[in-house]
Amino acid sequence: MEISIPLAGDGGTPYYEQIYSYIKKEILSGRIRKGEKLPSTRALSLALSVSRNTVQTAYDQLTAEGYLIPEPQRGYFAAGLQWNYSVENMAAQESFSQDTEADTEEYAVDFAPFGVDVAHFPFATWRKLAREILSEENREVLTGGDPRGEYGLRASICRYLNSSRGMRARPEQVVVGAGTAYLLMLLTQLTGARRVAVEDPTYRHVSRMLRRLSHEIIPVSTDRQGMKTEKLRETEADMAYVMPAHQFPTGAVLPLDRRQELLRWAEEKPGRYLMEDDYDSEFRYRGKPIPSLSALGVSDPIVYLGTFSQTVAPAIRVSFMVLPESLNRDFDEKCGYYSQTVSRIDQEVLAKFMDDGYFERHLNRMRGVYKGKHDALIDALQPLRNRFAISGERAGLYLRLTSKSGCAESALIAAAKEAGVKIYGVSEYFLTPRESSSVLLGFANLSEEEIREGVRRLGEVWLTQ
Amino acid sequence: MEISIPLAGDGGTPYYEQIYSYIKKEILSGRIRKGEKLPSTRALSLALSVSRNTVQTAYDQLTAEGYLIPEPQRGYFAAGLQWNYSVENMAAQESFSQDTEADTEEYAVDFAPFGVDVAHFPFATWRKLAREILSEENREVLTGGDPRGEYGLRASICRYLNSSRGMRARPEQVVVGAGTAYLLMLLTQLTGARRVAVEDPTYRHVSRMLRRLSHEIIPVSTDRQGMKTEKLRETEADMAYVMPAHQFPTGAVLPLDRRQELLRWAEEKPGRYLMEDDYDSEFRYRGKPIPSLSALGVSDPIVYLGTFSQTVAPAIRVSFMVLPESLNRDFDEKCGYYSQTVSRIDQEVLAKFMDDGYFERHLNRMRGVYKGKHDALIDALQPLRNRFAISGERAGLYLRLTSKSGCAESALIAAAKEAGVKIYGVSEYFLTPRESSSVLLGFANLSEEEIREGVRRLGEVWLTQ
Repeated sequence: MEISIPLAGDGGTPYYEQIYSYIKKEILSGRIRKGEKLPSTRALSLALSVSRNTVQTAYDQLTAEGYLIPEPQRGYFAAGLQWNYSVENMAAQESFSQDTEADTEEYAVDFAPFGVDVAHFPFATWRKLAREILSEENREVLTGGDPRGEYGLRASICRYLNSSRGMRARPEQVVVGAGTAYLLMLLTQLTGARRVAVEDPTYRHVSRMLRRLSHEIIPVSTDRQGMKTEKLRETEADMAYVMPAHQFPTGAVLPLDRRQELLRWAEEKPGRYLMEDDYDSEFRYRGKPIPSLSALGVSDPIVYLGTFSQTVAPAIRVSFMVLPESLNRDFDEKCGYYSQTVSRIDQEVLAKFMDDGYFERHLNRMRGVYKGKHDALIDALQPLRNRFAISGERAGLYLRLTSKSGCAESALIAAAKEAGVKIYGVSEYFLTPRESSSVLLGFANLSEEEIREGVRRLGEVWLTQ
Repeated sequence: MEISIPLAGDGGTPYYEQIYSYIKKEILSGRIRKGEKLPSTRALSLALSVSRNTVQTAYDQLTAEGYLIPEPQRGYFAAGLQWNYSVENMAAQESFSQDTEADTEEYAVDFAPFGVDVAHFPFATWRKLAREILSEENREVLTGGDPRGEYGLRASICRYLNSSRGMRARPEQVVVGAGTAYLLMLLTQLTGARRVAVEDPTYRHVSRMLRRLSHEIIPVSTDRQGMKTEKLRETEADMAYVMPAHQFPTGAVLPLDRRQELLRWAEEKPGRYLMEDDYDSEFRYRGKPIPSLSALGVSDPIVYLGTFSQTVAPAIRVSFMVLPESLNRDFDEKCGYYSQTVSRIDQEVLAKFMDDGYFERHLNRMRGVYKGKHDALIDALQPLRNRFAISGERAGLYLRLTSKSGCAESALIAAAKEAGVKIYGVSEYFLTPRESSSVLLGFANLSEEEIREGVRRLGEVWLTQ
C-alpha cells in the first residue's frame, strides 16, 4: 500500500501528529481496510521526506491506540475495529492529546497553577536506577511488599523530613500511598472524624472528596494571613485540614501565633486532629523556611502529609503521611487490608534516588530554576503593580494577583483570553460563594520567555481597559 | 576502623545478612560511633573472604535503613541515630526481612495461597520497555495524565479483554487504579449502594473494607457450585460482590444457571449492581475457559474487575474496572477528583508490554509453568485422596483440601506445622463462624520439587495419625 499524506510545513502541527491523524482517519473511514499492510516506516519517511523517527512516533501512537497492529519482522497492519459502536466516539476524539490540553491549545501562554517543570527531570539517572532495581537478583521487588510502603523508602523519607523540615519522624509512623487524595481517604477511615474544618478557599478536590465520604465540611474563612483560627473554635469540627506553609489558593503563610492556636485547639480535646498538607514547602525563594506544624515539637494531634508530585514529577505517584502514635497503632487493624498502592519498583527507585543524593541535587537545581521563573514573573509584573496587588509570592509555584479597583475575576480572565493567555480564577475554590477580583498565575511549566510574553499580553489588555 | 565479623558458613543465614545484622547491632549498641568510617567494601570483602557484592548488599541495606551514610569518593560512615527513642524498636526488629517472612522462616515449605511465581518475570523486557518510556522525547509521561488512566493502556486492556474474555468493552468505560481494593472504594462512592451481598466465605479484606466504608455486608452462603444465588433474592442487598470464574477460597466455578440468576436479580431493579471480580481467570488448566458474566452479553448491571497482580507481578500495582454506562457517566463528577493512582510511567510500560505481544507470550509461558506446578501438586496428592477431597483444582493458583473424616482445620494446620509445612485455613474467610475441615494449598511460588517435598511431609503426619 502506498500513502500520500499532504503535510503542512507551517510549523503549526508537528509532522508526526499530521501523519497520525491522517492514517487514523483513513482507518476509521474504512479507506484503509482491516488487515491492510501499512508502508514501512522507512518507505514512508522517504516518501514524505521526514525522519524515520517521525513516522515511528506516529505509528507507535496508532499502535498504542489500537489502530495498527505491529507484527515483528513483517510490519504494521491496519486493525479491525473491534468495537464498531464506538467508532463515532473515537472519530470525535479529533485531538492527538488529551482534552485538557486541547482546551489550552488556543492559548499562547497558559499560567496553569498546578503545572510542574518536567524539562529538568533527570531521565538518565532515573533510567539508571530503574535498571539497577529491575534486576534478576532483586526478584523480591516484584512481590507484594509492605502495605505501609517499603521500610527503606519510609526511612529515606524520615531522613529527608529531618534534614529538610526539622521533623523527627520514625519510619514506623510513615504510610506511603499513591496520591494525597488516597491518603486522606485512608485517614478518614482511621480517625472516624465526621466534621472536617477546611480553609475557605481550599483545594476543591479535597473538600468534594471528604464530603462524598460522608463528611460534613465546615468552611473556616481566611484572611491575608491564612485561616482565621479563632473561628475554628466556634465550629463543631473534630478534624481540620490546613496548609500552613503556603495555603492554596491564597498563598498565605500562617503566622506562628495562629499555628500555636491550631495546636491548642487540637490538643484541647482527645480525638481532634490537624491534617497538615505541606505540599509545596520545598520551594521558597525569599526569607527563612517556614517550619512545619509538626516541627514545633508537639506531634500527637498532627498528621503530616507530603508528596513527591511537585518535587520529582507528577507521574511519580508517591505521597506519604506521618501518623501520630494514637492513629498509628490502629493503622494495621483499620487500614491494613488496603494493599500498598505504589508499585514496589517505583518505591525502591525513589528510595535509591533519595539515598544516593540525587533527590537533594535535583531539589537544589529545581529551586534555582523555579526561583528564576518566580523572579521573572515578579519582575515582568512591575508595570502592573499600580493596578494589581501580588500575594502568595516568595514560595510555591504560583502567585495571586488581585485587582485593586475590584475588577471582577471573570472580566480579568475574559480579557486575558482575548490576549491568548490562560489564567485561573480563585472563586471556584471558595466553599462560600463570593465575588473575587483575584486570579492565579502558575509559572512552573513556562519558560522565562513565555512568562514575560504572557505578562506583556496581560498588560496590553488589562492596562488599556 | 577494622571489623572482624564471625560468619557462620552453615548455609543458614546468607553472609550479607550476617554482615548487615552485625554492623547494625554494633551501631545500635554504640560500639561503632556516629561518624566513624566503615571499612571499604573491598577491604571488608578481603578480610572476610566473601565477594565484594555480598558486602555491598549489606552496606546498601544499612544505608537504606539509615545506619550508614555513603559519601561519594570517601566511603561509608556510621549515622548518628536521629530518633533515639526508637532505637529499641529498631533493635527489636531483629530480622532482615519483613515480619511475615520471618514467620515463615521456620517452615520448609509454605503453600501460600496468594503467592505468585516471580522467577519467570521477563526482567530484561521490562527494563528495555522502561528505558524506552523513560526517554527525554517522552517528557509528557512525567505529567499528571488522565484520572481514569492513560487512553492507550485502556485501549490495550480492551483488546485483551476482547481476545481473552470475549468481552466488548470500550476504553471510555475503563478505569485503571492501584489495586482492586482501591477500585472497590471508588465504586462504592459511585454506586451509592449501601447493602452489599458477598459470597460466604470470601476475601476478608474486601468484606472488612466495605464494612468500614459504612456498608452493610450481607453474607450469602455457598455450596460446591458457589454462591447459592436463590438466597440472594431473600436479602435486601443492592449490590453483590462475586467471583464467578473461580471463587476464593472455595475454588467453585459458578454454573451457567446461577450466573443467569445473578443477572436476573441485578436487572430486576434499577440501581442493583454485580461486581464481578475476575482475579485469576487467566490460569485454567483443564476444560474450556469460563466466560465472564460480562461476556454473556448483558453489560449494564455489571462492573468487571481485573488485575495484573497475578498475570504480571504483584508489585505492578495495576488493576482495572469496566463500568457499565449508568455508572460510567457519573464517574467524572463523583470520582474525578481522585488523581490516577498508577504512575503514568508504569501505565505506559504495561501498555507497551501488552501491545508488543510480550504480555501474551508471558501469559502463555506462565500458564505452562503453573500447569506444571498444579499437575505436580495433584499428582503428589494421590496418596492422600482416600482421606482428603480436592476441590478448586483445574484453575487458579491454589486448591482446597477437605478432610473426609471431618478432621478440624486447626488440627490439620498444627500437624503440618510439626512437619515444617505451612498451610492455610479456610475458616477465617467465613463471615458466619463455622467449623472447617478444609485447608488451602497455594502452589504458585513453589518449585515442583518443593511441592512434592511439602506433600510428602504432609502425608507423613496426616496419614499416620
